[in-house]
Amino acid sequence: MQPNKIVTLTTDFGQAGNYTGAVKGVLLGINPQITIVDITHEISPFNVLEAALLLNSFYQFFPRGTIHLAVVDPGVGGKRKGILIRTDDYFFVGPDNGIFSFIYDQEKVREMVNLTNSKYFLCRPSSTFHARDIFAPVSAYLSLGVKPGVFGSPTHDCYKFKLPEPVYRNDYLMGEIILIDRFGNLITNISSDLIPDESQVQVRVKNKTINHLSQYYEEEKKGRLLALIGSNNFLEIAVNQGSAQKFLKAKTGDEVKIENIKG
Amino acid sequence: MQPNKIVTLTTDFGQAGNYTGAVKGVLLGINPQITIVDITHEISPFNVLEAALLLNSFYQFFPRGTIHLAVVDPGVGGKRKGILIRTDDYFFVGPDNGIFSFIYDQEKVREMVNLTNSKYFLCRPSSTFHARDIFAPVSAYLSLGVKPGVFGSPTHDCYKFKLPEPVYRNDYLMGEIILIDRFGNLITNISSDLIPDESQVQVRVKNKTINHLSQYYEEEKKGRLLALIGSNNFLEIAVNQGSAQKFLKAKTGDEVKIENIKG
Amino acid sequence: MQPNKIVTLTTDFGQAGNYTGAVKGVLLGINPQITIVDITHEISPFNVLEAALLLNSFYQFFPRGTIHLAVVDPGVGGKRKGILIRTDDYFFVGPDNGIFSFIYDQEKVREMVNLTNSKYFLCRPSSTFHARDIFAPVSAYLSLGVKPGVFGSPTHDCYKFKLPEPVYRNDYLMGEIILIDRFGNLITNISSDLIPDESQVQVRVKNKTINHLSQYYEEEKKGRLLALIGSNNFLEIAVNQGSAQKFLKAKTGDEVKIENIKG
Repeated sequence: MQPNKIVTLTTDFGQAGNYTGAVKGVLLGINPQITIVDITHEISPFNVLEAALLLNSFYQFFPRGTIHLAVVDPGVGGKRKGILIRTDDYFFVGPDNGIFSFIYDQEKVREMVNLTNSKYFLCRPSSTFHARDIFAPVSAYLSLGVKPGVFGSPTHDCYKFKLPEPVYRNDYLMGEIILIDRFGNLITNISSDLIPDESQVQVRVKNKTINHLSQYYEEEKKGRLLALIGSNNFLEIAVNQGSAQKFLKAKTGDEVKIENIKG
Repeated sequence: MQPNKIVTLTTDFGQAGNYTGAVKGVLLGINPQITIVDITHEISPFNVLEAALLLNSFYQFFPRGTIHLAVVDPGVGGKRKGILIRTDDYFFVGPDNGIFSFIYDQEKVREMVNLTNSKYFLCRPSSTFHARDIFAPVSAYLSLGVKPGVFGSPTHDCYKFKLPEPVYRNDYLMGEIILIDRFGNLITNISSDLIPDESQVQVRVKNKTINHLSQYYEEEKKGRLLALIGSNNFLEIAVNQGSAQKFLKAKTGDEVKIENIKG
Repeated sequence: MQPNKIVTLTTDFGQAGNYTGAVKGVLLGINPQITIVDITHEISPFNVLEAALLLNSFYQFFPRGTIHLAVVDPGVGGKRKGILIRTDDYFFVGPDNGIFSFIYDQEKVREMVNLTNSKYFLCRPSSTFHARDIFAPVSAYLSLGVKPGVFGSPTHDCYKFKLPEPVYRNDYLMGEIILIDRFGNLITNISSDLIPDESQVQVRVKNKTINHLSQYYEEEKKGRLLALIGSNNFLEIAVNQGSAQKFLKAKTGDEVKIENIKG
């Protein structure tokens, strides 16, 4: 697989731009042919898990050879490694702090490199801004055809989050809210595979009961609570043209129970 | 007209990126040559009219052949159609829910297609995320040269908002605020054409009177309320280096009256 | 130096997109080959100094020939000039209101042009939106190879902010907070050059004392106040995985004192 000149950016740097400007400058300064794709710079500050979950929702749609640069990095300058991962189809560059946790599960990792070769860093890297000083230049040189192995030493050891898995208890399935989107939709860790008969389920969340699964939001009246299988194939709680987050005063970690499961 | 590889994005998906990343991935996954131009992802959630008004402020500056992809889509998965519109100079792709209302008024529509050909959808489209599953792939294939008619059946029927029009009553003109920008400037539905003699008007808004039209913001002292013809040729109420929205506690729909009109 | 087709955008127009869409359309409408790089549209409204400081953090990383378009422009339509600056490596386009203050200090200015040639403006420029009507078209024609001198008359006179300089008093150095980033890190005007022996300093800010400089954020416990030399080589006050801004109720202009200086 050859890199394809596309570099995606996922960070917690914020829209105000104190940091993304420099990262983009370094990328284009080394390789002006790069196509930069902003995914988001609005990951909640320091929230590595949020970035890891987000990566999962988009990386696989990009063309083969895309470089995914992801930086939420509270441990910058400390002991955590910087890594470059090569899978069958993509490259991933960033801190080894769990941000690529779900990539390891879903992709075949072909090469993993500990970024130690300072020849490819910005001269005199700071200890607070490795996105600019290490991850951006490595991504840019990678896009120019420098082989992954050249950026450091092979490593087999990487940091992974474990997501809470839903559990069966008697006749029900207990999961939880793992992500809340901009619309206030509550996305759970209950994959559609775990719901064998969609016509028969009852969903319990925050003392409310939803008696069936909808197909789409507008199936219910405006303002009504509903449940459906969301666009990433996980059970999602929503309010038509409203916010389930506000309606239920929900937060990540809150329990979601599915009853009448005949698993 | 041939498409020119530029695709603009106007959505209510928010900066947090749960959704735009996938849309961008699908576009580039199908045609890596596309130039993606972010217009905004901060349309107020579900506010189709806001997106329709915004489209009007930029689409016409892009080069001929640009594809404008616009998605604010509370009715996703339900009865509303997905459409592709070809005008003399542009393509528009999105839900048929009024988001293209002002395009129909301003451009000659040459072709309008109901997006039904699932060959050009993502395999197994969800019922909650047509931006990723239908509108992005259609836009990408369109940019590759697939003819509009191939994406579905011709349609002549489309959903349109009607904007409130200003009305003459005796010797004054009554309009309203239709949009408030980031600076708190209040943009009205009163076009400059309706104000024959700019030197003679009085503007009444929220019990305040403005006695003349300014040419530019800084003509007035810092903090002072003023009225001028804004950059889209509509009457605008502003405060120099401040927010007219806060100053007047104004909201969209509030009345704006022009006196001494000799229409 | 030839322009390289990259145009960066730094504005206070906000993410909501009422204005950036038109600017991008005008740029690509004139030269579809331009690569637009969003730096930020979230400069605080009307805050020219903030934009000037931000420019300094990224412009120098871009490849030679990049056009930096920067617009925070409360005086639009009034007496302030529009200017184009050519340095050894870059072009800068925007209002002459101090937004390029720190460029003059750091770069050799080779040419400075007062933008008066309306042939390169959008026809009938508004008096409230020069980014769309003057600065974008000038940048686009510049990227096509039009010589700077063609856009107007040479000028040698430009508006500059003077940043507060830190001052020595007896045995201490008194500086101040000049910028606060998204994480609540407090960036001061005290450059690392002014701190000869980093191992010996004490930092005083808002009645708190920090007894040494850290190398990186995570060197301190989560939630602890710390000081370090930030990524732009200025003294920075931070809280590991927290906000020094909130912790100290700090704002720009607050004093920061370094004791035990042996300058």
